[in-house]
Amino acid sequence: MSKKVLLTGDRPTGPLHLGHYVGSLKKRLDLQRDLETYVMIADAQAITDNFKDINKVKTNIFEVACDYLAVGIDPAKCSIFIQSQLSELPELAMYFLNLVTIQRIGHNPTVKQEVKSRGFKEGVPAGFYLYPMFQVADITAFQANVVPVGPDQAPMIELTRDIVRKFNDLYKTDALIMPEAIFPQGEKTLPGLDGQKMSKSLNNAIYLSDEVDVIVKKVKKMKSDPNRTSIEQGGDPDKAIAFSYLDAFDPDQKMVLDLKERYRRGGLQDKIVKERVVEVLCSFLDPIREKRKIFRNDPSQVFEILKTGTSAAKEKASNTLHLVKKAMGIDYNFEKSHYTSSASLR
Amino acid sequence: MSKKVLLTGDRPTGPLHLGHYVGSLKKRLDLQRDLETYVMIADAQAITDNFKDINKVKTNIFEVACDYLAVGIDPAKCSIFIQSQLSELPELAMYFLNLVTIQRIGHNPTVKQEVKSRGFKEGVPAGFYLYPMFQVADITAFQANVVPVGPDQAPMIELTRDIVRKFNDLYKTDALIMPEAIFPQGEKTLPGLDGQKMSKSLNNAIYLSDEVDVIVKKVKKMKSDPNRTSIEQGGDPDKAIAFSYLDAFDPDQKMVLDLKERYRRGGLQDKIVKERVVEVLCSFLDPIREKRKIFRNDPSQVFEILKTGTSAAKEKASNTLHLVKKAMGIDYNFEKSHYTSSASLR
Repeated sequence: MSKKVLLTGDRPTGPLHLGHYVGSLKKRLDLQRDLETYVMIADAQAITDNFKDINKVKTNIFEVACDYLAVGIDPAKCSIFIQSQLSELPELAMYFLNLVTIQRIGHNPTVKQEVKSRGFKEGVPAGFYLYPMFQVADITAFQANVVPVGPDQAPMIELTRDIVRKFNDLYKTDALIMPEAIFPQGEKTLPGLDGQKMSKSLNNAIYLSDEVDVIVKKVKKMKSDPNRTSIEQGGDPDKAIAFSYLDAFDPDQKMVLDLKERYRRGGLQDKIVKERVVEVLCSFLDPIREKRKIFRNDPSQVFEILKTGTSAAKEKASNTLHLVKKAMGIDYNFEKSHYTSSASLR
Repeated sequence: MSKKVLLTGDRPTGPLHLGHYVGSLKKRLDLQRDLETYVMIADAQAITDNFKDINKVKTNIFEVACDYLAVGIDPAKCSIFIQSQLSELPELAMYFLNLVTIQRIGHNPTVKQEVKSRGFKEGVPAGFYLYPMFQVADITAFQANVVPVGPDQAPMIELTRDIVRKFNDLYKTDALIMPEAIFPQGEKTLPGLDGQKMSKSLNNAIYLSDEVDVIVKKVKKMKSDPNRTSIEQGGDPDKAIAFSYLDAFDPDQKMVLDLKERYRRGGLQDKIVKERVVEVLCSFLDPIREKRKIFRNDPSQVFEILKTGTSAAKEKASNTLHLVKKAMGIDYNFEKSHYTSSASLR
């Protein structure tokens, strides 16, 4: 039996942080053993809202690749690839655009929200408006069975399922695979230093590449329980951000429970908790940072990995494109021996 | 000095008729001598409103190619190519979509009209709504200097010029060539048998492939001056459709003037005029029809021509795509020797 296929990826708009690790990278490390995994560095998608600053996208392809390799995404098991190198993706998108109305694409609450937050002054760039349709091409190109996403990405998966259904019905084929979304199963998301969602733009993130002194500084900034005014007073560990980091990274969860109990009772300094956070994060991040440095200092190795991954991804996408064109009846064959076959133009 | 580049083409939704000949093919025959000419069989575009009947599009690729070759489009001078075979076109379109708002694309009076006339029941398919942006890709891909179009296509050329301007400004490049539209210069359009625009869907067309008996039948159906009730009465040759055909095809224009004069005076039977039309059309269409049959009976020759033309077109489009990616800074180079160059990812 062939393995199920997994597609995941990131927009290369900045190096990856602990929020990415907890939210998706960790899961990928588990899944890469058993699934045929494609990890997409989505530069073409990142360009849709960074077309005036493409250099940012370009430089971060390398940074994100180093992050992947440092945390243990294994190029022997996964194909790490660069989206823009696959002309098959926009070609698929072109044909899928025939199967959806322009109105339907606009009725996507997530995109509406994103459009709002980006505040495009001169109207919505068509590339950004249409990016969910290019995602449909990404997902279907790899015949992905499973796509791990956040709840905000649910409308994109629903759109993909719609297109798969329509395409397979209209062209009487099973060329496209129906993907399933994998949503987080009760895993807590890791908050940023200020308690908001961890995000580069909010300046509240700890990066996989952060040095020890940076980690120390950032942990100091973590919000404590705002209702607690003295050390003697008891506090709510759920409201002290530091505990979220211990929940996510402390290998000694018994000690975490103990610390939480003491925090509730009163008398435990936030400083003590944060010292433990620094200790835990350093022992988690030190080997990642060191591994990352090795890759970063050997770009030719990284590019070789990207090249190999991109080739494998291209082969897979090209195969799907062929199936799609065949189902549509436009797999024209110019070879003489085929002129009279069903695939010919007559 | 290098030749100017011309891009023209047709949607393969039916064989070509005399309206196509007078409106565009004739001009192409003149221009192909002096310009680097690309003749596109626009199957991908035709699919945007025929995605439920792709077989129609597919079979007409061959028919249109036979029409081209029969009228004298010369594959030694032109590249006749099949649009869908060039993945470079949707790839270019993807990047251009970032430079235009979704609203601006919708503000196209021609597309609005087309949407209306097609009466899409479930909303406008996104592929159809966006086809002007794919035309931008077509025109720019070939670095076309001149694009012969009807007045209804003016908004598409304007959109193309907008995108060329924006792209070259934003990425500080001259990678894209500013195209000029060539509009008809006082040439009369050839009406259909009923006086309306000649069109397959109106069932009023004479095809380049029509046999003599079909021509005779169709000419009989040509509308005469509706105000003329008897042969003795004078008529208006401008209102008798047959004269439009003599204007366009009769090599003896002196005789045409004479016939018109007699028609005005009264006493000239429409039948006589129509007999001359049959004579003129047969002497024009007989050699085209015979040449067409030769090609139609030798599909391998036609496909060889399409294959060669498509290769040449692909090379041109690929070169443009490379220039475009270079200007955007995304011409990543995975070769080791280039890792540290400006084109690398670091």
